[in-house]
Amino acid sequence: MTAIRRHSERATAERKGLDAILDEAFVATLSTVRDGRPLVVPVMAGRDGDRIIVHGSTGAGALRAAAAGAPVALSFFHFDGLVYADSLFDSSANYRSAVVNGVTRTLTADDAIAALDALGDRLMPGRREEVRTHLPKELAATLVLALEIGEDNWTAKQRSGPPGTEVSGAPAGVWQGELPIESRFGTPRAHPGLPDGVPVAPSVAKRVGSPLP
Amino acid sequence: MTAIRRHSERATAERKGLDAILDEAFVATLSTVRDGRPLVVPVMAGRDGDRIIVHGSTGAGALRAAAAGAPVALSFFHFDGLVYADSLFDSSANYRSAVVNGVTRTLTADDAIAALDALGDRLMPGRREEVRTHLPKELAATLVLALEIGEDNWTAKQRSGPPGTEVSGAPAGVWQGELPIESRFGTPRAHPGLPDGVPVAPSVAKRVGSPLP
Repeated sequence: MTAIRRHSERATAERKGLDAILDEAFVATLSTVRDGRPLVVPVMAGRDGDRIIVHGSTGAGALRAAAAGAPVALSFFHFDGLVYADSLFDSSANYRSAVVNGVTRTLTADDAIAALDALGDRLMPGRREEVRTHLPKELAATLVLALEIGEDNWTAKQRSGPPGTEVSGAPAGVWQGELPIESRFGTPRAHPGLPDGVPVAPSVAKRVGSPLP
Repeated sequence: MTAIRRHSERATAERKGLDAILDEAFVATLSTVRDGRPLVVPVMAGRDGDRIIVHGSTGAGALRAAAAGAPVALSFFHFDGLVYADSLFDSSANYRSAVVNGVTRTLTADDAIAALDALGDRLMPGRREEVRTHLPKELAATLVLALEIGEDNWTAKQRSGPPGTEVSGAPAGVWQGELPIESRFGTPRAHPGLPDGVPVAPSVAKRVGSPLP
């Protein structure tokens, strides 16, 4: 539709492109199938090498279905901005997204502890050194699932840049461009039960004001 | 586990609670089923009364499966912050989420135009008055789907507040609390092909710097 394409919307075929999208997320949407219908739950998720670690309560139906061997899709999405073209049809969003498909493996005992540690280090870097370790009863109440990242069980896609449309020559053309969305960590709010004088933990303090990718 | 619960994690049974979550989202994850496996794609989505309008390219497999009558789940998620407890097990996230289930209806002709207008007004308020209307060839390339919001085909859930754990009496207790995530619209970037002097459109200018809910 246009000779000049300054935007970029493309599938990402390289593994490092996938990893970048996964590693900038805290949350994924876990989709699975039960009785022929989609069963969906948002989950905390993080990459650990060639696998994605997901954990949640043993009470969540979608997690239990995944643990029982139902095929899953883990979907990651970053919303980077709105793209205003000269028509609503050509208007769009800038984003990064990835979907990883497969069947999860349920981790137990030392495997579960190692995976939870890796997930904790991904979501709350440095926190593990500040708090106690997992208790046996806590592990018993937690489902820890791993989804392997293989050669061909994932897709990644992203769009960036201005509208893909050419600017028309109309004398008083309507404004076109991008409206970015910026996210950052705000000011920590202490637990109201915390005694006065407890400083914000280093693992939290280092994140304050920093942008989310 | 604790006598004092200052946080709130609960299912939302009221329709207005659902609507608040839907109306603060731009994007949903559309999950459907093909050959017994989950098929997932992120989509632009917006509520129009008692239905959710979704649109996308006729090239997207999950959208085509939905249009062909496969059952879907539309999942919405807002990430409000990380919750640091005194253990990783009790650490959590503050969020608002909703899932709406059902079978979509494919809209055509005037119904499709009305739905696209409603979606445009939701995602880019005021923009429709600034740009041209849809062309027939654009409508032909777009799938417009509607998912009804019924009495019992949705769930909504949210968590807010500090960790649910009681603060221990340890003399030098570790800091616990919330690290909020704040999102806002940033500075517009004009299309590089735009002539000098075209002012930022009012529909865009009014959003600059405003927080995303």
